[in-house]
Amino acid sequence: MQIYNRQQIAKQVKLDQAALETVEAGFAALGRGEVEMPPILSMNIAESNGEVDVKTAHIRGWPRFAIKISPGFFDNPKLGLPSLNGLMLLFSAKTGLVEAVLFDEGYLTDIRTALAGAIAAKHLSRTDARSVAVIGAGLQAELQVAALRLVRDIREVHVHARDRTKAEAYATHMRAYHGLPVTVHNSAASACTKADIVVTTTPAREPVLRWSDLPKGVHVTAMGSDNPHKNELEPAILANADVVVVDRLSQSRALGELHHAPALQREVSELGTLIAEGRILRSSAEQISVCDLTGTGVQDTAIANYAARLLEGA
Amino acid sequence: MQIYNRQQIAKQVKLDQAALETVEAGFAALGRGEVEMPPILSMNIAESNGEVDVKTAHIRGWPRFAIKISPGFFDNPKLGLPSLNGLMLLFSAKTGLVEAVLFDEGYLTDIRTALAGAIAAKHLSRTDARSVAVIGAGLQAELQVAALRLVRDIREVHVHARDRTKAEAYATHMRAYHGLPVTVHNSAASACTKADIVVTTTPAREPVLRWSDLPKGVHVTAMGSDNPHKNELEPAILANADVVVVDRLSQSRALGELHHAPALQREVSELGTLIAEGRILRSSAEQISVCDLTGTGVQDTAIANYAARLLEGA
Repeated sequence: MQIYNRQQIAKQVKLDQAALETVEAGFAALGRGEVEMPPILSMNIAESNGEVDVKTAHIRGWPRFAIKISPGFFDNPKLGLPSLNGLMLLFSAKTGLVEAVLFDEGYLTDIRTALAGAIAAKHLSRTDARSVAVIGAGLQAELQVAALRLVRDIREVHVHARDRTKAEAYATHMRAYHGLPVTVHNSAASACTKADIVVTTTPAREPVLRWSDLPKGVHVTAMGSDNPHKNELEPAILANADVVVVDRLSQSRALGELHHAPALQREVSELGTLIAEGRILRSSAEQISVCDLTGTGVQDTAIANYAARLLEGA
Repeated sequence: MQIYNRQQIAKQVKLDQAALETVEAGFAALGRGEVEMPPILSMNIAESNGEVDVKTAHIRGWPRFAIKISPGFFDNPKLGLPSLNGLMLLFSAKTGLVEAVLFDEGYLTDIRTALAGAIAAKHLSRTDARSVAVIGAGLQAELQVAALRLVRDIREVHVHARDRTKAEAYATHMRAYHGLPVTVHNSAASACTKADIVVTTTPAREPVLRWSDLPKGVHVTAMGSDNPHKNELEPAILANADVVVVDRLSQSRALGELHHAPALQREVSELGTLIAEGRILRSSAEQISVCDLTGTGVQDTAIANYAARLLEGA
């Protein structure tokens, strides 16, 4: 059994084409019905303002499955500790023996989450998409844009965040580390004016994006919501968009954007199905597409298999 | 973060009164509504005849919670490996950080499972119980009897197992290691004739114990069933017994003995409630009581906290 720390893992696993293809293969297997993926195990620790989620999946034919444990303890910053944490255990799918423990502290989750955004944009956004609007200014605001560059020729970024200081810091960082021009906006509407792709990356409990904010032809990825209280999109977006896709229907209904649109009557597809069947849902440059990502165990198993291969080869 | 292996853990954690009190305290907290215990996460790996279960619970006020991962890969013996395996991770209930990894290979599960049987007998069997009948001849057939000695003055054991050779080996082992007289029987009915306590410890998919097998005044603990296909007790036992108790109603209905008696209309109590409220359900020496144990996350969190304290003190 091998044990790896975050530093070792981060040295090997990057936001690159090979990682993207691995996660995309996981989604495709899910779409072909080749993935066993039980519901998320979730527990609250109310006295410490904490929660822990456990996700897993097995992709038929893959040598290992991951079990990911993600604690979130939101009073940790008062103690000088990060809120989010976590590790992945990798088990042999033949014997059930533990083969590796990846003490990644959430690093692989950050990577596979950003890659899912890129995969959504690859299959849903216009191929000539150049301009990205990002709502939120945290780590995923950076990683989602970095991952999008793997699938689209991104030339400019527009950012809006509730905290203008954080948005300014984000802009400075993105210019310095990613060489991208970034404009800070005072509203989501303003940030979206010329966007080809919009990514919402917030823990918002009330919509941060409205239907009226969206220009024609845009693709929206909402990646922030992962529990029933979180909600980034005005339900009208889900009702009016030409194409609505989610990573997993059961999860989006339970803890994603569909949870806040219970009366929605329309076709909603799963991302894995589109990939598996090679379907292109966008049929014109004017259509508006939306993808809600809640985060799935199949992404964890895919990225953990990939990480272990690289770490063992290193 | 500390990592402990099976040998280190087994050296510290034994079937003794202190361990029993810890698990009993966990059940009592569950009975008082002080435990957060989500449903078990369960995944099949059909291509390898495998499954993996994840259990967890947090006991309010306790410093740590455990997440237990139990793979069962039933073709492993062909490869010279044990079918069952597993580990427990202990997290700080204040910060969510991993504090210990207990690579116990299922040892702590064996212990807490046996202790639950003893706790059930402590609260449900006659105080003068002396004779135990055991159905099955595996590891739990041994540990359940050993644990019962913590709460009752056990003087003799009667065993029945489908495989007579295993039952004979069990008898030899119990005489040698536990100094108990053991009689091997050709049927469950025969083994139960003079029993004060009956424990079923099998992975049976059809009842191994019938109502007509039970003498007056007996207490029955069924600890084998932990998935919807398993079933040790004829439903008539649940219908006719004077007292029926389970470790967790939701689990017994989903994957324990109650699953096979869906039409049952009677009072069924949870073990933790009895302990928390100090209730004694047995009101005469003739009554027949039954307890179905499916195995709960609160036992895991209790025994893992206990193990970590001992290991840190060692």
